[in-house]
Amino acid sequence: MKPINVGLVGIGTVGGGTYTVLKRNQEEIARRVGRNIVIRIIADRDIEKARRLVDDDTKVTADAFEVVSHPDIDIIVELIGGQTVAKELILQAIANGKHVITANKALLASHGSEIFAAAQQKGVIVAFEAAVAGGIPIIKALREGLAANRIEWIAGIINGTSNFILSEMREKGLAFETVLAHAQKLGYAEADPTYDIEGIDAAHKITIMAAIAFGIPVKFDKAYIEGITQLSNDDIRYAEELGYRIKLLGITKRVTKGIELRVHPTLIPVKRLIANVEGVMNAIVVKGNAVGPTLYYGAGAGAEPTASSVIADLIDVARLLTADPEHRVPHLAFLPDLLSDTPIVPMEEVETAYYLRLQVMDKPGALADITRILADSGISISAMVQKEHAEEEDKVNIIMLTHTTIEKNINTAIARIESLPVMAGRIVRIRMEELSK
Amino acid sequence: MKPINVGLVGIGTVGGGTYTVLKRNQEEIARRVGRNIVIRIIADRDIEKARRLVDDDTKVTADAFEVVSHPDIDIIVELIGGQTVAKELILQAIANGKHVITANKALLASHGSEIFAAAQQKGVIVAFEAAVAGGIPIIKALREGLAANRIEWIAGIINGTSNFILSEMREKGLAFETVLAHAQKLGYAEADPTYDIEGIDAAHKITIMAAIAFGIPVKFDKAYIEGITQLSNDDIRYAEELGYRIKLLGITKRVTKGIELRVHPTLIPVKRLIANVEGVMNAIVVKGNAVGPTLYYGAGAGAEPTASSVIADLIDVARLLTADPEHRVPHLAFLPDLLSDTPIVPMEEVETAYYLRLQVMDKPGALADITRILADSGISISAMVQKEHAEEEDKVNIIMLTHTTIEKNINTAIARIESLPVMAGRIVRIRMEELSK
Repeated sequence: MKPINVGLVGIGTVGGGTYTVLKRNQEEIARRVGRNIVIRIIADRDIEKARRLVDDDTKVTADAFEVVSHPDIDIIVELIGGQTVAKELILQAIANGKHVITANKALLASHGSEIFAAAQQKGVIVAFEAAVAGGIPIIKALREGLAANRIEWIAGIINGTSNFILSEMREKGLAFETVLAHAQKLGYAEADPTYDIEGIDAAHKITIMAAIAFGIPVKFDKAYIEGITQLSNDDIRYAEELGYRIKLLGITKRVTKGIELRVHPTLIPVKRLIANVEGVMNAIVVKGNAVGPTLYYGAGAGAEPTASSVIADLIDVARLLTADPEHRVPHLAFLPDLLSDTPIVPMEEVETAYYLRLQVMDKPGALADITRILADSGISISAMVQKEHAEEEDKVNIIMLTHTTIEKNINTAIARIESLPVMAGRIVRIRMEELSK
Repeated sequence: MKPINVGLVGIGTVGGGTYTVLKRNQEEIARRVGRNIVIRIIADRDIEKARRLVDDDTKVTADAFEVVSHPDIDIIVELIGGQTVAKELILQAIANGKHVITANKALLASHGSEIFAAAQQKGVIVAFEAAVAGGIPIIKALREGLAANRIEWIAGIINGTSNFILSEMREKGLAFETVLAHAQKLGYAEADPTYDIEGIDAAHKITIMAAIAFGIPVKFDKAYIEGITQLSNDDIRYAEELGYRIKLLGITKRVTKGIELRVHPTLIPVKRLIANVEGVMNAIVVKGNAVGPTLYYGAGAGAEPTASSVIADLIDVARLLTADPEHRVPHLAFLPDLLSDTPIVPMEEVETAYYLRLQVMDKPGALADITRILADSGISISAMVQKEHAEEEDKVNIIMLTHTTIEKNINTAIARIESLPVMAGRIVRIRMEELSK
């Protein structure tokens, strides 16, 4: 089947990530869609940089309007941002009957209703998963996954820059200005950080979510917006002492008088999961009247996380252009004739770390025998503590954490150790996962 | 437009929730779909109970096969569970050209491949969002939201009963058997809790997620399964002292040798968000090669949360049967001509709680003046602490947390308090949200 041809407007951070991920995961994506998705033409003002980033068979132009009017292109991806040229380009693409994918939250929060009306009339899709919370599929969750619910409220950490600053202020006791400068050095904050630290970016995103949650037009101009520039370490510390953490939240809520739509620093109880979202990560709590609270967490910015959402939208549209509606999303996500027969690894071959608790007679030499057996099995210890035995004082509990090893090795070692005369009971073995990479 | 007619097989906990939520949120759902979704006929062995639960115009029968063969029915919802009759019913419904929605994880984990093949051939959908993690839209996230990614691993707390037991054991220092009996009394554990505490239920769910994540057939018989019945309080406590929490995780991971598929108690670092998921709640971490780690949290069981997923599937299918594919999901989730003009509430009218920090000269009577002004404005205090001023010892910081009030009231009170001669600076005001209901 011939590929889906995509035109990309703007190859900055997210555009570059989209190009890279689409290429790297090409095979995986084709197994899900049933055909390839290929970026054929790219427009960027910096035509030299664009040429360096892409393959020779990808056309590069400085003229974005050439892309949106290209007869071979099925889908336009708009990633230049801003509200003037981007709007013109999107409306032109729609008029040309192209589907459009955009990450442009500012544009949609202010002009979304006009753009969606044009798309609706023309029968094309304007998809925008990447406009809110980067790689988190929150638009899909709100529009589809939670569609059974009457949504009651949404509260989200939806600006990674400001969350990073608040995390650093709290953890290191540093002042706002110091942390901002540090964030700029790390690339987490832009040279002009106004949109992030003044809450404007978060307001764009909560405006879009409010529209989807409550079935109202986008109303950015009605949002209340307050940033984090006035926050002091004293208040962060006092809040903590009272059991609260300060986060910049976007909040939208259905109340008797109407819809609340606001962005401001907010004290939330430390015991809430969302209070523990630190650094540049984003998280959104959605309260539905049937499901109760649900939370969605992930990277809210960055080249590849945002590309993940751009490409999810590409796949959505590509699936629509490829299969009958009933077969649009395969039952098991991949086309049935493209399932793989990758084997399930037997447990004996699984590699993981272990927590071991050994009940040992409190005698000299016991530990030496045990550690020698572990060493023989190629198992190394990352931590060890000895604990009194609760009931019998001639016994001790030895707790060991191991580095990763094969289950077979630990089984062998456990069998050998349990046969030592110094052992006072069976070994407790619990697997450990860092879940970090 | 005429309604979508649904046949429901089994009106137990989830079936009852589905009936209730569909009726309660009827209007909201119709605004999203463009037509009503109505349960026309219900089969249940307990026909008297079924009659009591539903309206007079819903037909009730004891014969499930009457439902799946009913000529007026577009979609069948199977909620009886089990693997024999349920399988026969689903295959018959497919053969009759009906779309099927099921929460039957056990059936899909073992016979999913056969069922999906039949559905694929017949051009009908078998949807199963409710089969994994109750109300969390994780199937949609994996099949669509994260489709750009090569999935690296999934780790999930996907059995609420066992998570509740582990939470209680840790928080209260109680033994497994004691907590299990308590959970049974609360209705969080069944009379025969084997499936939950032995990890079988979690294994069904991780098997389904593995298939969707990696594009492999369902292979429940290859899963390694170990439950929580052997866990002792000692190990939970020792793990905690080392910075780890023990959770029953379903884990599936892509490694060089193949796919790991396993359920067992696992030590995970306390600082991970998922380690802080307590009680009957579920959470799933998915690691994609572009997006990095994302997490999905919510109620993993219960009548209405599970109904939320069943109905999301109903809406998915209903949207397909209603609109052109390009208009399947409206841009703003609701049909454009059914958007509402609900007003945005002005900030002055928003009701919330407040953190106030007042810098006050350390003089007698200061607090009396302040609290009188707050009382006059109808603002009541929920907590108050006095702190030394960092630099000047003739000043103090008074921190107050208020109960909820209208923003206008707090503005008025702040203006009045700031004009008191005893004040030594502007009042810091930060809003508070409990995010609890």
